[in-house]
Amino acid sequence: MAELRPSGIITLLTDFGSNDPFVGVMKGAILSRFPGATLVDLTHAIDPHDIAQGSFWLEKSFRWFSPGTVHVGVVDPGVGTPRSAVVVSAGGHVFVGPDNGLLAPAAEAAGAPVVHAVDTSHLGLPKPSDTFHGRDVFAPVAALIAAGHASPTAVGPERSQLVDSRLPRARRTSEGIVGTVVAIDHFGNLITNVEETKLENEMLREVRIAGKVLPVGRTYGEAERGQWLALIGSFGTVEIAVREGHAASVLGVRTGTTVEVITERSKPAAG
Amino acid sequence: MAELRPSGIITLLTDFGSNDPFVGVMKGAILSRFPGATLVDLTHAIDPHDIAQGSFWLEKSFRWFSPGTVHVGVVDPGVGTPRSAVVVSAGGHVFVGPDNGLLAPAAEAAGAPVVHAVDTSHLGLPKPSDTFHGRDVFAPVAALIAAGHASPTAVGPERSQLVDSRLPRARRTSEGIVGTVVAIDHFGNLITNVEETKLENEMLREVRIAGKVLPVGRTYGEAERGQWLALIGSFGTVEIAVREGHAASVLGVRTGTTVEVITERSKPAAG
Amino acid sequence: MAELRPSGIITLLTDFGSNDPFVGVMKGAILSRFPGATLVDLTHAIDPHDIAQGSFWLEKSFRWFSPGTVHVGVVDPGVGTPRSAVVVSAGGHVFVGPDNGLLAPAAEAAGAPVVHAVDTSHLGLPKPSDTFHGRDVFAPVAALIAAGHASPTAVGPERSQLVDSRLPRARRTSEGIVGTVVAIDHFGNLITNVEETKLENEMLREVRIAGKVLPVGRTYGEAERGQWLALIGSFGTVEIAVREGHAASVLGVRTGTTVEVITERSKPAAG
Repeated sequence: MAELRPSGIITLLTDFGSNDPFVGVMKGAILSRFPGATLVDLTHAIDPHDIAQGSFWLEKSFRWFSPGTVHVGVVDPGVGTPRSAVVVSAGGHVFVGPDNGLLAPAAEAAGAPVVHAVDTSHLGLPKPSDTFHGRDVFAPVAALIAAGHASPTAVGPERSQLVDSRLPRARRTSEGIVGTVVAIDHFGNLITNVEETKLENEMLREVRIAGKVLPVGRTYGEAERGQWLALIGSFGTVEIAVREGHAASVLGVRTGTTVEVITERSKPAAG
Repeated sequence: MAELRPSGIITLLTDFGSNDPFVGVMKGAILSRFPGATLVDLTHAIDPHDIAQGSFWLEKSFRWFSPGTVHVGVVDPGVGTPRSAVVVSAGGHVFVGPDNGLLAPAAEAAGAPVVHAVDTSHLGLPKPSDTFHGRDVFAPVAALIAAGHASPTAVGPERSQLVDSRLPRARRTSEGIVGTVVAIDHFGNLITNVEETKLENEMLREVRIAGKVLPVGRTYGEAERGQWLALIGSFGTVEIAVREGHAASVLGVRTGTTVEVITERSKPAAG
Repeated sequence: MAELRPSGIITLLTDFGSNDPFVGVMKGAILSRFPGATLVDLTHAIDPHDIAQGSFWLEKSFRWFSPGTVHVGVVDPGVGTPRSAVVVSAGGHVFVGPDNGLLAPAAEAAGAPVVHAVDTSHLGLPKPSDTFHGRDVFAPVAALIAAGHASPTAVGPERSQLVDSRLPRARRTSEGIVGTVVAIDHFGNLITNVEETKLENEMLREVRIAGKVLPVGRTYGEAERGQWLALIGSFGTVEIAVREGHAASVLGVRTGTTVEVITERSKPAAG
């Protein structure tokens, strides 16, 4: 593996919300070790303890940052139990968090992940609390790596692999692809795990969810107000929207709902 | 127009909310082009698709930053349709966003706006997605300008003017000024578009809204708990408040509600 | 008092929420005076006007930052009335805010507070508005101090002391300690003011609240899903949780509720 050249940027993704100073205190733990850090909040509104949802957004977000960025993910219902804290180097990016499936999709997408368990005493960190490893383990480790004070491969013993992703996998059927709603965005759009890259010489024909059959479009703006629309969203997966409305509320759909994407053979490019 | 001296500061105002990593990903798109950027969130809680509200807060906020700051505004229900992306230079500030009325009030207030449409291919940017120009157009363009890599007047062809503001305009009556509630703040105070600068040798006498007649004060602290109060707020417009209460809930008022500001001749300064 | 060496870091804690650009505008007021500032949001979701809650989180948060950090706190129902604006130097930290009890717990914890009232005209600041001292007083003063342009002891006349804390104090009983729920976190956990440091050779036996008697544990992860748990939280006070549930909703408990912590003599370390 090539040597990491830290960019000094650290991203943060948690289920801590923004009401309490938990994230602010993590930033204190980073800045007191690396005053020059550039800190970016990805989101702190992952549904509490929803490891799959956190892993989905981390995988969709990390690639918009330069290699050399350190990404801290904390969705950690097992804090204080013997689950490991890990540092993963993959594709020039570094991921820091609990080894519970949260980091796996991003690490796989980044490519050729190298995994090391964190040994806090080896790193000279104080004994962590039982309940807040975001502050006591992940933030300090990220700071040391982003500052260039510790190599991602020197934080503790190597591990052969990460705990598997908890994201449901979309599967092919005779008609197309069946997937799952993995997130609902601020506009109420349903974000699914059906990836555009899984389409093979085919295009979307229609999308079925919650008893409804929805037409396929290209952009929110082309539908009339109040009209349903399925499209390939900006993160490369199938999304379901109501133009200027809140699809999740209208359909009564939550994350975990099944979605059927019906495809048809692409027409030849000419014509 | 004088040459821009970028301050390195980029502000962000959107209707993306803070639950999804949309804003974080925009910051990635900025930092990967301009790692030294100083990023400031103005707000991401503009009501979805409410261009008027976004334009109000952008106009009230930009002036608290130094000239040389780049302000990105994204309230963009027409994303993916042929509406233009524009860069506006005005009074030493730069505004980047969709040309749908969002930038107009701030640009006019900053003074003598010069408008250029964004040509992404001319700037060497990848083809944007159909649904997320905040990430694919506005953030990269802002980064290039704030870094000094592109002049605001070199992003594409000049335009003679911006699409008009969608903010309702307050109008004078025989009794004073009739305006509109344009925003409701975190404390439930009703923020109106009645500007103090529109008063001509007159002072506020009372304010009428939703069938209520409210007295006028100077500061929240001088009212009793639970007492109504109309005052000139900290952004220079008439506000309506209940001391330590939530005016919008108590009155059942939303944005768009009409407000009548009754004025009287100012008394002479002496006495 | 030793001379302050500013770290360039400024933290912000307010009850302004994140929906309006109030915090963004404060950052503009800081950056236009100190463009190199590193800004950290602790929280802006203090319950409106809840000085005690704000003071609790400020006291729990400031210590995770390096000495030399300037902490701005704004929970200020008395803005515009004759309450003072103050700067407090304590333990190498600087606190800036209204003198209404908000800063007192943090300043006492930091040690040997030295208090100065802010004289804005002496500092060359424009006349503040009546309603937004966060922007017009506290942010500019913090910027001047963090930039090294003003000493915390040169902002105005010295005061002998701060207005007292409004935090309820826990008290000892024959059975243990009786305290109060002072905050409810994002996970619904009840955070109390019963400090671990107040325990004297004793350990927690059980916790009583809202008619329930709860067992004591060490970490969230060790309870079964849905099981009650009282523990010493990551900020060193007694917390009450339901494993992967929302304790405040299930118990119907709000801040201000009394909690009885029953203790027993610690067993000898051996055995």
